[in-house]
Amino acid sequence: MLPGIFWIVPAAGVITIIFAIFLARNVLKRPTGTPKMKEIGDIIFQGAWAFLKRQYSTIAMYSVAIAVIIGVLVGVLGGTEVELSALDIGWRTGVSFLVGAFCSGLAGFIGMYIAVKSNVRCAAAAQKNLTEAVNVALRGGAVSGFLITALSLIGVTVIFFAYGGNNNPDIAPHLIVGFGFGASFVALFAQLGGGIYTKAADVGADLVGKVESGIPEDDPRNPAVIADLVGDNVGDCAGRGADLFESTAAENIGAMILGIAAYLATDNIAWILFPLCVRGFGMFASMIGIFFVRAKENENAMNALNRGYFVAIGLSVIGLAFTVYYMLDNWWLFGAGVVGIVASVVIIFITQYYTEARYKPVQEIAEASKTGPATNIIMGMSVGFATTFATALVIGVALLAAYALGEQSGVPGAGAFGTAVATMGMLMTCPYVLSMDTFGPITDNANGINEMAGAGPEIRRITDRLDAVGNTTKALTKGYAMVSAGLAAFLLFQAYLDRVSFIKFGETGLYTIVDIARIEVFVGALLAAMIVYLFSAWAIKAVGKTASKIIEEVRRQFREDPEILNPKDPAHPHVPDYGKAVDITTRAGLREMIAPGLLPVLGPVVIGVVFRYLPGGYDAAMVVAAVLMVGTIAGIMLASFMNNGGGAWDNAKKMIEDGQLKDDKGNVLGKNSLAHQAAVVGDTVGDPLKDTAGPSLHVLVKLLATITLVMCPLFIAKG
Amino acid sequence: MLPGIFWIVPAAGVITIIFAIFLARNVLKRPTGTPKMKEIGDIIFQGAWAFLKRQYSTIAMYSVAIAVIIGVLVGVLGGTEVELSALDIGWRTGVSFLVGAFCSGLAGFIGMYIAVKSNVRCAAAAQKNLTEAVNVALRGGAVSGFLITALSLIGVTVIFFAYGGNNNPDIAPHLIVGFGFGASFVALFAQLGGGIYTKAADVGADLVGKVESGIPEDDPRNPAVIADLVGDNVGDCAGRGADLFESTAAENIGAMILGIAAYLATDNIAWILFPLCVRGFGMFASMIGIFFVRAKENENAMNALNRGYFVAIGLSVIGLAFTVYYMLDNWWLFGAGVVGIVASVVIIFITQYYTEARYKPVQEIAEASKTGPATNIIMGMSVGFATTFATALVIGVALLAAYALGEQSGVPGAGAFGTAVATMGMLMTCPYVLSMDTFGPITDNANGINEMAGAGPEIRRITDRLDAVGNTTKALTKGYAMVSAGLAAFLLFQAYLDRVSFIKFGETGLYTIVDIARIEVFVGALLAAMIVYLFSAWAIKAVGKTASKIIEEVRRQFREDPEILNPKDPAHPHVPDYGKAVDITTRAGLREMIAPGLLPVLGPVVIGVVFRYLPGGYDAAMVVAAVLMVGTIAGIMLASFMNNGGGAWDNAKKMIEDGQLKDDKGNVLGKNSLAHQAAVVGDTVGDPLKDTAGPSLHVLVKLLATITLVMCPLFIAKG
Repeated sequence: MLPGIFWIVPAAGVITIIFAIFLARNVLKRPTGTPKMKEIGDIIFQGAWAFLKRQYSTIAMYSVAIAVIIGVLVGVLGGTEVELSALDIGWRTGVSFLVGAFCSGLAGFIGMYIAVKSNVRCAAAAQKNLTEAVNVALRGGAVSGFLITALSLIGVTVIFFAYGGNNNPDIAPHLIVGFGFGASFVALFAQLGGGIYTKAADVGADLVGKVESGIPEDDPRNPAVIADLVGDNVGDCAGRGADLFESTAAENIGAMILGIAAYLATDNIAWILFPLCVRGFGMFASMIGIFFVRAKENENAMNALNRGYFVAIGLSVIGLAFTVYYMLDNWWLFGAGVVGIVASVVIIFITQYYTEARYKPVQEIAEASKTGPATNIIMGMSVGFATTFATALVIGVALLAAYALGEQSGVPGAGAFGTAVATMGMLMTCPYVLSMDTFGPITDNANGINEMAGAGPEIRRITDRLDAVGNTTKALTKGYAMVSAGLAAFLLFQAYLDRVSFIKFGETGLYTIVDIARIEVFVGALLAAMIVYLFSAWAIKAVGKTASKIIEEVRRQFREDPEILNPKDPAHPHVPDYGKAVDITTRAGLREMIAPGLLPVLGPVVIGVVFRYLPGGYDAAMVVAAVLMVGTIAGIMLASFMNNGGGAWDNAKKMIEDGQLKDDKGNVLGKNSLAHQAAVVGDTVGDPLKDTAGPSLHVLVKLLATITLVMCPLFIAKG
Repeated sequence: MLPGIFWIVPAAGVITIIFAIFLARNVLKRPTGTPKMKEIGDIIFQGAWAFLKRQYSTIAMYSVAIAVIIGVLVGVLGGTEVELSALDIGWRTGVSFLVGAFCSGLAGFIGMYIAVKSNVRCAAAAQKNLTEAVNVALRGGAVSGFLITALSLIGVTVIFFAYGGNNNPDIAPHLIVGFGFGASFVALFAQLGGGIYTKAADVGADLVGKVESGIPEDDPRNPAVIADLVGDNVGDCAGRGADLFESTAAENIGAMILGIAAYLATDNIAWILFPLCVRGFGMFASMIGIFFVRAKENENAMNALNRGYFVAIGLSVIGLAFTVYYMLDNWWLFGAGVVGIVASVVIIFITQYYTEARYKPVQEIAEASKTGPATNIIMGMSVGFATTFATALVIGVALLAAYALGEQSGVPGAGAFGTAVATMGMLMTCPYVLSMDTFGPITDNANGINEMAGAGPEIRRITDRLDAVGNTTKALTKGYAMVSAGLAAFLLFQAYLDRVSFIKFGETGLYTIVDIARIEVFVGALLAAMIVYLFSAWAIKAVGKTASKIIEEVRRQFREDPEILNPKDPAHPHVPDYGKAVDITTRAGLREMIAPGLLPVLGPVVIGVVFRYLPGGYDAAMVVAAVLMVGTIAGIMLASFMNNGGGAWDNAKKMIEDGQLKDDKGNVLGKNSLAHQAAVVGDTVGDPLKDTAGPSLHVLVKLLATITLVMCPLFIAKG
């Protein structure tokens, strides 16, 4: 018997899709500005689309291969856990992997389609006023944000019931873990490929354009400028979308697995369905929040976005209370959910502290730029490292509090279920946060289009301001994704242990200890930390290699046709070959994503299998648990350094460009000063950290969780 | 009854000291070259001496305070473990802390005294020939290397017997843990203070001198040049000396604690004294190795050093076999010791691969310099991250192998004792490695003195080559120190668990599990990783801040007296104010070492005490165990990135200076090319990583072990 409140799930799914269609139509019917603007918008669209098609063809190929491998491995080595045969479980896992992968890909495609159509309309709206421009950017972003979360909710729900969730709610969650793995698999490649593309293009465009040739950002004379604008879409927009699609899906499934214990004790399916219903309420809360965003002409657009966010937060708390009351009737768990919501708000303030020019960290980096690029980078690295303090503290305190509240609740599963509720609470506002995130690349593109189309200074001032706001929202989303990964970690560990216990002993709760004082477990933990670094090394190197290629290409074009930079007839300047730069980036980006992408997929599996078959009586399942746990710690710490450090470098540069840095005598050290050049180097170094490796690390952390969940039959020696 | 073979310990101690005195006299009686050279040497000596005196005054003050605090805390909260009262244990721990701290300080002082006296003599010897110069540098370095290890061996032995080791060999090792803590406490501050000093001076001198003003390294016109030369001594020489003094002491004590179990089972004290005897043999092996170093005039001096090293390695294996045969009579444990020795050789090759210009990683960084400082740094970061792969693999495989061999041995303590034997095996050649390490700053200084004294190109070529060899030996020592920290980690964990068990239950072996799946243990692990990052952040920032001050000072001197750079009368150039730069660096370096130094001392204690008193039934001792274990992993991984990345950046710059980088058309991109400038930025960024934060992290890892060992009574709730 489904609980009455379950209507919220299909209702939220359907209404959200209608809402997204309404927004999409609203955005698409708007004017696209001057022919010049439309032309630029179309070029960006084509570049982005071409990349996405080729990227997802590659990913699809790998996905099918992985689905077959999973199916076969689990079919051969799994079994014994439930009434179903190993073969049944195998094909179901493989299919749910493919469905997860497909949904993730679909979400990325649709979201990016609208985002790339919104940018030129946002640029055009800026010619009217700020309010309109904000509306277009946020609505365009919301299409992406809401569609992604709706697809994740619908996908998990459908596959849960398709796999017998109604009759065997205690077994179905185990069968759908493949969905989460599929989603994270696609997310990792989407984030990596997009991240490599965007930053290689950005680094290439900036270094030769801004530093060597002294032309402004987004100047149409720069051959890499279109690739740079395309990159914002494929990296920030498609990548983060896939990341959070994955988060909501995998954490939802993990929470359902944790609910099984309480279901078995009470025979009430509400424990398993609770995560789905809470997210339904979160959708509505976020939707209403969007309606509350009305930017006033003379205010900081960030304030308008924050108003909407706090409405969404407030409504989420109410929705949470309502769901807890009807489904669980346990107010300790409401407390745990509130812990998650509070953590999401706190991390946003902390991210602002570390990455905004009005606070000390960014100012110190700007100050250090006076003595050149080396001191700028040393200081930025220091700031980035220091941010781990706040990240670890927020995650640590939230975990302890949610766990303690969960234990007080007295439900079976206790503490870990508390952290699951906290995670679900945090993810309630995910659609809203994702909308704000996609706001970033849209305004960034709009600003670029206006620059390239030669819009007047008044219009540029509007999109410039929006672009800065977009940088902030992008940084906030990364903080949000990072903390959600940390908060979810514990529920995913528990899900893994439950599943190992289930496979090994036929019931959960018998395999609970991960003893890092065992030699093989310690070594596994060490290797996990190493995988995180090696992954980052490869991801960063991919950007460096690709960027070098673009830099050479831009230099070549400038060298072979000096009239690109200095036209003899300014009315008819020579146009650089944008397509060549786009093509180089696309090819390199796709080639370079393969190795780092496969590392975290194969790493834990190889470690687990090797320890299973090594002589010495090692507990391979425990080794993999340590890989998961310490890999999570290492990944979150390194991501905190990269995301926040990168954001701080970026804004230190912006602060100098805004004329806020002065020398001893009070003279402004602005654009093209030595300090500015140093800050540009810092920003460039930060780029692959904050937009390629860092965000990919969130996905990696969650991929570790889903892959170990799916593959755990492989690590358990047959008794 | 002491085993007969124990004579090796006093013999090794006494003979080593005689050997060191002989070497010191041999070096000191050599000529100091021209008056100009002597003058420069004296200035460096005074600067280094002044810094060291002030540094150790500060450290002494803190040490006494900490000794009192430890004594009181352990006296009040400890107890119940043995016949001794809590008060007895308290004051003994405090006293052994002070003795350890004093010995460490003494070792640093003497070693540096000789090193700073050797540099000018090495410079003078280079005027004769290469062989002589190598002799002076290696012998000067060996004074430091052998005295340090002898003091550590004698110190541990004396305090062991002073605390009743002869009558109660099962209790004494527990009482002398304070010695290890004292040593690591001083080591941390010595390494940090020296590291901040050396890199701030280096960064400052390079940035204004080489990059802004285009004058060569070590040019006498640079006001920061003396501070830079002083820094090589106080950072590389005193710092690393304290580091390895600490390693040998703490790991020796940990190994003795692990031997207690076997002693209790067999009533044979050999199990406890084994680590001391093995080190005695290591001393002799290293001593003989030194005699085998005879550089031929036309060979790479590194080959000569390697010959001596392999002699020392070979003799160590023989000494190990001998000791195992007489004391333990268990060939599985010989195997474990060989694992440690092999690991020390392997890591040296790996370090060379990552940091030498003849291999791909450094070449890739040099290549990336062509497109500017940003791509140089991105690539260097990628190389640094990637080095964690080899580090983790060597440590992981060595731990598993040594543990498995230990288990095969069947002795009580089994696997963990195997890792202890491996660690002792690795540390046998410590005196030799330390001599090679101190070779580095001596040749670096000799090169600088020759440059400043205007020696001819022929002489400079000799010291230049030695300087390059010194860079390599410094990098190797860091790799050695890092892997020894990793290998020792497991024995130190086990010692901690044994001690907790002893305090909690009155006997060892009852407290063995560190369950990271417990919420508080996981959060502790997360916080430990954070401490490692935060420590690095503060250490790096200290360098950045201090360097900024020096840069301003150098710029001021150049601005206020243009004749420093461009003298009107070249025969009588204006001499810059070296003393001012030395003074600025000294004051800043000492001020900045306090905060990062106290963090890892207070961090684990605060975490342990908070969890002990928090409601919720947390197991604080287990939390601290996780802090220790995951802190170790995080520290080693980050140190691997910093040490190797920094070394690679350094040598990429050197490679370009050597004219080994060419553009597409085959033109050499040498000194002062854009690529070179970019590489200088990378080198500068790498400096605080590889010489301040990185080496301090090894010490931090071992400090975590000693502080938790000493403080563990605080974390155990009274039953």
